[in-house]
Amino acid sequence: MTTQIKHITVVGTGVIGNGWITRFLANGYRVTAFDVDPAAEGRMREAVKNAWPAMERAGLEEGASIDNLYFEQDLEVAVRNADFIQENVPEREALKRSVIAEIDQSAKKETIIASSTSGILPSTLQADCTENPERVMVAHPFNPVYLMPLVELVGGNATNPAFIDKAKEFYRACNMKPLVIRQEIEGHVADRLMEAIWREALHIVNDGVATTEEVDASIVYGPGLRWALMGPFLTLHMGGGKQGMRHLLEQFGPALKLPWTKLVAPELTDELAEKVISGCEQQTAGVNMDDLETRRDQFLIELQELLEKYWPAASLTGKL
Amino acid sequence: MTTQIKHITVVGTGVIGNGWITRFLANGYRVTAFDVDPAAEGRMREAVKNAWPAMERAGLEEGASIDNLYFEQDLEVAVRNADFIQENVPEREALKRSVIAEIDQSAKKETIIASSTSGILPSTLQADCTENPERVMVAHPFNPVYLMPLVELVGGNATNPAFIDKAKEFYRACNMKPLVIRQEIEGHVADRLMEAIWREALHIVNDGVATTEEVDASIVYGPGLRWALMGPFLTLHMGGGKQGMRHLLEQFGPALKLPWTKLVAPELTDELAEKVISGCEQQTAGVNMDDLETRRDQFLIELQELLEKYWPAASLTGKL
Repeated sequence: MTTQIKHITVVGTGVIGNGWITRFLANGYRVTAFDVDPAAEGRMREAVKNAWPAMERAGLEEGASIDNLYFEQDLEVAVRNADFIQENVPEREALKRSVIAEIDQSAKKETIIASSTSGILPSTLQADCTENPERVMVAHPFNPVYLMPLVELVGGNATNPAFIDKAKEFYRACNMKPLVIRQEIEGHVADRLMEAIWREALHIVNDGVATTEEVDASIVYGPGLRWALMGPFLTLHMGGGKQGMRHLLEQFGPALKLPWTKLVAPELTDELAEKVISGCEQQTAGVNMDDLETRRDQFLIELQELLEKYWPAASLTGKL
Repeated sequence: MTTQIKHITVVGTGVIGNGWITRFLANGYRVTAFDVDPAAEGRMREAVKNAWPAMERAGLEEGASIDNLYFEQDLEVAVRNADFIQENVPEREALKRSVIAEIDQSAKKETIIASSTSGILPSTLQADCTENPERVMVAHPFNPVYLMPLVELVGGNATNPAFIDKAKEFYRACNMKPLVIRQEIEGHVADRLMEAIWREALHIVNDGVATTEEVDASIVYGPGLRWALMGPFLTLHMGGGKQGMRHLLEQFGPALKLPWTKLVAPELTDELAEKVISGCEQQTAGVNMDDLETRRDQFLIELQELLEKYWPAASLTGKL
């Protein structure tokens, strides 16, 4: 826990908002959650309760308790005493802009307003703020937020870098790996890389080359195993022999000119959508989704322990 | 070990060939290695010796020994008694075609000839075979071959599916996960997905949005952790809440029309090449590459144990 930040307000309680709430509570913070929907409170408490055993297994901070959680339906009341604000309303530009502008009106002037947006630029999000747009930024997490360490920090034109530094320190104190992105682009960095795979995977299914299950298997038993340890660059550097990337670019550089990857996204026809949906449903047929989540969570905890053991954070894959 | 296959010939002893040799030896087979270069024998024995402790740790098959390895410089002699042949000469179409045609002349008529090619189509590779093109196929592995379970099997126009079935059984007996690809395309499946990420990652570095180290960190601390467990489809299915992929496609389908991913590969200018090479060299500065390989190998062994524990192979991510 950082000394200055004690009370966090989470705006919007979908899957991502609830993930943040769980992480903040586990790190010993007091959390106020805002949602327009009164039914959201029950769903939120249920989600936090379900994830809590994983947090206990991963290790709670001193003073951490599921009881430090408050629900509030008035946005102004929810944010006015907050030391840090995490926004997670649905991914619609107009909605996010207006909610953030409203938060900016009511929050303490130095309180950071961080948006979980996947794709909207921070310069856009802060455009309607009249009080202090300098403290508005993107802080984009990954699902499940309570266990995934990466958070991408991106400032907009009006963001003051000093607030980025403060946010970085705060997320580190929440046991996360904050990555500051040097330039705002749609999708930031990780989502763009994921989208590149996603487009190509849709083509492969659309063309009947492989099913969704086979595409998943081709990642899980192959590149996915390595990507948990090394990113795409280090993987190729190690594949290049003694000369590393220098040799690899000489050998495979020319292949970039080959028409391998499809250059556009496929049309999401009803037929393709059905193929993808039924493929995923078949993969999980007879499996309880809650049980699946529990297994995924346990796996992620032990995987991170494994990474610490063989690949200390201070080296190699990014000094976050 | 399968009963019919006892003696394997590996043609070409680069990084991939030596990886196969190590895997086959560890699974109790007798291996003959062919290479035109007499100096290749020393490098090959060194590579197998270095990887052997990892194989001992992962578990050797009965009778497995590093002493069951023979080096041969005459291709005809090397292949004529083989029960299975794995080809790994450099990735040049004309070279591969002629080597495979020569193997086809000398090998026993029912012996499978499997090529490790990353990108060349099996129909092309078998085109010059006059004896029995039906037993020629692609069997594409991943580095390090002695530990990575995935092998992609692809038949060409002339391939008899019965040989694909036999090869599948053989690779399973080598503790691998054979994925039969339904249609031949350049790059098969996993390499296409990797190439999609690779192109986008090069753009991100080229545009100054992130360094190679930051791109790697964005995978390792984010999507990479999940991809070790689930492929892209199951990841999104679980991100879609109770409605799974159905909900997700409704929400994010329209985003496929957004100009996120760059639609072409970047020009590999000298400047970009230098940026990528020096980035990778900085990431590994002061680190011994052999030590890095040892750590990666130990990690991959324990990661696969973890996957077995939480995600038994018989479910979810592809029933290979």
